[in-house]
Amino acid sequence: MSGIDVVQPVVAAAAKAARPWADKAAGDRAHALDAAAAALDAAAADLVPVAAAETRLPEGRLTGEVARTTGQLRMFAGVLRDGSYVDAVISQGDPAAGRADVRRMLVPIGPVAVFGASNFPFAFSVAGGDTASALAAGCPVVAKVHDGHPRTSEMVAAIVAGALTEAGAPPGVLGLVAGLEAGRALVQHPQIRAVGFTGSVAGGRALFDLAASRRDPIPFYGELGSLNPVVVLPGAARQRPAEIAAGYAASLTLGVGQFCTKPGLLLVPDDPGLLAEVADAVRASTGGPMLTERIRDLFEQAVGEPAWQRQPLLAEGSAADDTAAVPQVRTAVVAELTGTEATELTRERFGPAGLVVTYPTVADLLGVIPRLPGSLAGCLHAADDELADAAAVGAELRRIAGRLVMNGWPTGVAVNWAMQHGGPWPSSTSPEHTSVGMTAIRRWLSPVAYQDWPDQLLPPALQRANPLGINRTVQPF
Amino acid sequence: MSGIDVVQPVVAAAAKAARPWADKAAGDRAHALDAAAAALDAAAADLVPVAAAETRLPEGRLTGEVARTTGQLRMFAGVLRDGSYVDAVISQGDPAAGRADVRRMLVPIGPVAVFGASNFPFAFSVAGGDTASALAAGCPVVAKVHDGHPRTSEMVAAIVAGALTEAGAPPGVLGLVAGLEAGRALVQHPQIRAVGFTGSVAGGRALFDLAASRRDPIPFYGELGSLNPVVVLPGAARQRPAEIAAGYAASLTLGVGQFCTKPGLLLVPDDPGLLAEVADAVRASTGGPMLTERIRDLFEQAVGEPAWQRQPLLAEGSAADDTAAVPQVRTAVVAELTGTEATELTRERFGPAGLVVTYPTVADLLGVIPRLPGSLAGCLHAADDELADAAAVGAELRRIAGRLVMNGWPTGVAVNWAMQHGGPWPSSTSPEHTSVGMTAIRRWLSPVAYQDWPDQLLPPALQRANPLGINRTVQPF
Repeated sequence: MSGIDVVQPVVAAAAKAARPWADKAAGDRAHALDAAAAALDAAAADLVPVAAAETRLPEGRLTGEVARTTGQLRMFAGVLRDGSYVDAVISQGDPAAGRADVRRMLVPIGPVAVFGASNFPFAFSVAGGDTASALAAGCPVVAKVHDGHPRTSEMVAAIVAGALTEAGAPPGVLGLVAGLEAGRALVQHPQIRAVGFTGSVAGGRALFDLAASRRDPIPFYGELGSLNPVVVLPGAARQRPAEIAAGYAASLTLGVGQFCTKPGLLLVPDDPGLLAEVADAVRASTGGPMLTERIRDLFEQAVGEPAWQRQPLLAEGSAADDTAAVPQVRTAVVAELTGTEATELTRERFGPAGLVVTYPTVADLLGVIPRLPGSLAGCLHAADDELADAAAVGAELRRIAGRLVMNGWPTGVAVNWAMQHGGPWPSSTSPEHTSVGMTAIRRWLSPVAYQDWPDQLLPPALQRANPLGINRTVQPF
Repeated sequence: MSGIDVVQPVVAAAAKAARPWADKAAGDRAHALDAAAAALDAAAADLVPVAAAETRLPEGRLTGEVARTTGQLRMFAGVLRDGSYVDAVISQGDPAAGRADVRRMLVPIGPVAVFGASNFPFAFSVAGGDTASALAAGCPVVAKVHDGHPRTSEMVAAIVAGALTEAGAPPGVLGLVAGLEAGRALVQHPQIRAVGFTGSVAGGRALFDLAASRRDPIPFYGELGSLNPVVVLPGAARQRPAEIAAGYAASLTLGVGQFCTKPGLLLVPDDPGLLAEVADAVRASTGGPMLTERIRDLFEQAVGEPAWQRQPLLAEGSAADDTAAVPQVRTAVVAELTGTEATELTRERFGPAGLVVTYPTVADLLGVIPRLPGSLAGCLHAADDELADAAAVGAELRRIAGRLVMNGWPTGVAVNWAMQHGGPWPSSTSPEHTSVGMTAIRRWLSPVAYQDWPDQLLPPALQRANPLGINRTVQPF
């Protein structure tokens, strides 16, 4: 079947579900999301071995990821019960003064497409954060199966769609399509109103271009690649070199380096003590099998490039067998990050590879941070007595990264209301949005304003008596 | 000079201004916006005649438009003084439970480009709503001169830039470039981080495509064309035909039909009484000179198209002389809006042309509304005893229009916090945003989250004591 033949019935079902799903009370959608979470939790023991076989990820990690996934669904159920996510703004009218009464809120945008990532078969896939936030918003979802975990995708879709409809959602509220051509047809389908994507820069860019070149362009919310620089200030390097080295090696090699938040760049003072600790920690680290053969090939290619190979090797880790990817860390000096090969040195290498860059002074560091590519996260390790430098580095990091972490590591994105997962290009395609955290729901909502509309015809969120008891912004006079 | 030569020094100055402007306290930016508003008000008597000569718009209308423009600047000053626009979300940490403390807020995106419209030489131009909201957000603006009012643009830029810098803004916070090639270079300039645009579908689409095809795509917030359907329900048609007819003709011909909110489509019951009143009101209306020769030519072309000419003429207005555009209203039946020429019949014709479409029953009406193109506004005229039909029509209109008006007309967009000016394609390129109202500021802001960040290094908006006293969302546990 051609892409459009695969996609057509699934999108048609989503389009049919769009109005009943949007028209449900937020509390009813919350109930359905909770039911989906419960069903996934109940099926975890069945799902995890399938995902483990497909992705080569360890079962312990995958069990945790199912919990993360259901945590996301429940978080958005909580956002719906709170109800203030509709972002109501009210400018009260005054007929005597000829002033119109205007009441604005967010409403669902319509059926959306979700493309999950290879590296999170649950939390950023069929029932991951994009799907949870879109369903919460009131938008049916057509998910594209990731070819790295097709069986897992099908099982999750069946479980979640079943639980949703049993909880009162219309059929078609979550659909699934598979295949590259189906993915392309999905982004171009007239009834699809927005796209969520997590994956590579190359894949995301290709779909972004399709979305932008439609007769009616639609928003494309892509989370692509990320370098995630980590800065160690001199005081921290002196104070706790072993702790920093261990934390770095653990974050770099977590999940065989296959996280979009992997610390790809470590900026350290030219401190032999710290460098020796980092080398030791990396040597003590182990690699492992990568998600797919293709990802393994891309990793070998990325670390085989001349621009990378030319950099001195600081240390390598070990691996259980020949099929495993081996952690490797190379070094550079800060001046190289402004040289001709800067772009090559600072691009994401998906897998357990890292670059450690030494800087002579904090001033040198400050000059180079603005030239780094946009990232999901930037981290800073500082001692208590170097807050002035910390403030200066933080001000620079803020301009290139969406999340700033003090004395911590970029991996391990907490699921909470305030989380920001996004940043300047190439980390995100839409710098005004996030794919994690409560405001991720905004991607699937459009504002509408009611002017001089009779109170009894207004949505409850906008009625004068505020029957939902939500937070609203009321224009002060 | 080539486009990039024109643009380079102006963007460089904006880029230099970006950090000091972003780092100013919101109250200081508010002070500068108020100063710009006061300076424009003080210069209104000088500006209006220049704009009148360039645009052929009447002085009374232009004087009102200056007041609207300064009202917008002051509204965003008020948004800054309120301070809650940073949309702070806080998930409190708990080290004992291993829970990170995450605090998220919006920060300025960087220098932006603004392309104003021909039809609002003040309110949607150099110092219009896009500029006011971007400056409020903390983003320097490089405005592209509209060739329909170059002198006005230069005068406004000089007055506003002067007032801003005198009030403490860094030089370069508002710059100006002119020429088609400069406009293209501006959208492609690496240091420009977003674009605001108000204008035609063709012009907007060309610039949108440039923004999307950059190596690092940037958001393009375009407000393009709009049909703005107005529905008259049978009860309203019976109850107040003369009032509706007069309101329609006035809204259609306001500013010689040169508003993006012009009611391009009037849907009425097949009621000879109302149609006769509408015909009378149109015959009593007068046209006038259009903004530019080119716009006049495009209008003549649009009303000369066979698809338009084939429709029966309901009435024409009059015009003072041969250079004026003459109001004309043609008719169709509702079935034609789903026929082969529907696209032609329902596209925007910029100028005093309108289509009146008769429907046999409300059910026929409900079937056709979802097939109309996306609009900035949709209006509904209903009698008190037809609220059920009003609710049904409102539910359909909500899906194709960003603002719904009861018993009113789409022209005359109020400047207030709750206003929504945007809608599905082609009325906007970004369905999750608005170009008027307080949330217009969001287009120029990116979220950033601080994780486990020391309180004294946090921006005041996120500090534990909430020293700014703003509204914040705190995650409930």
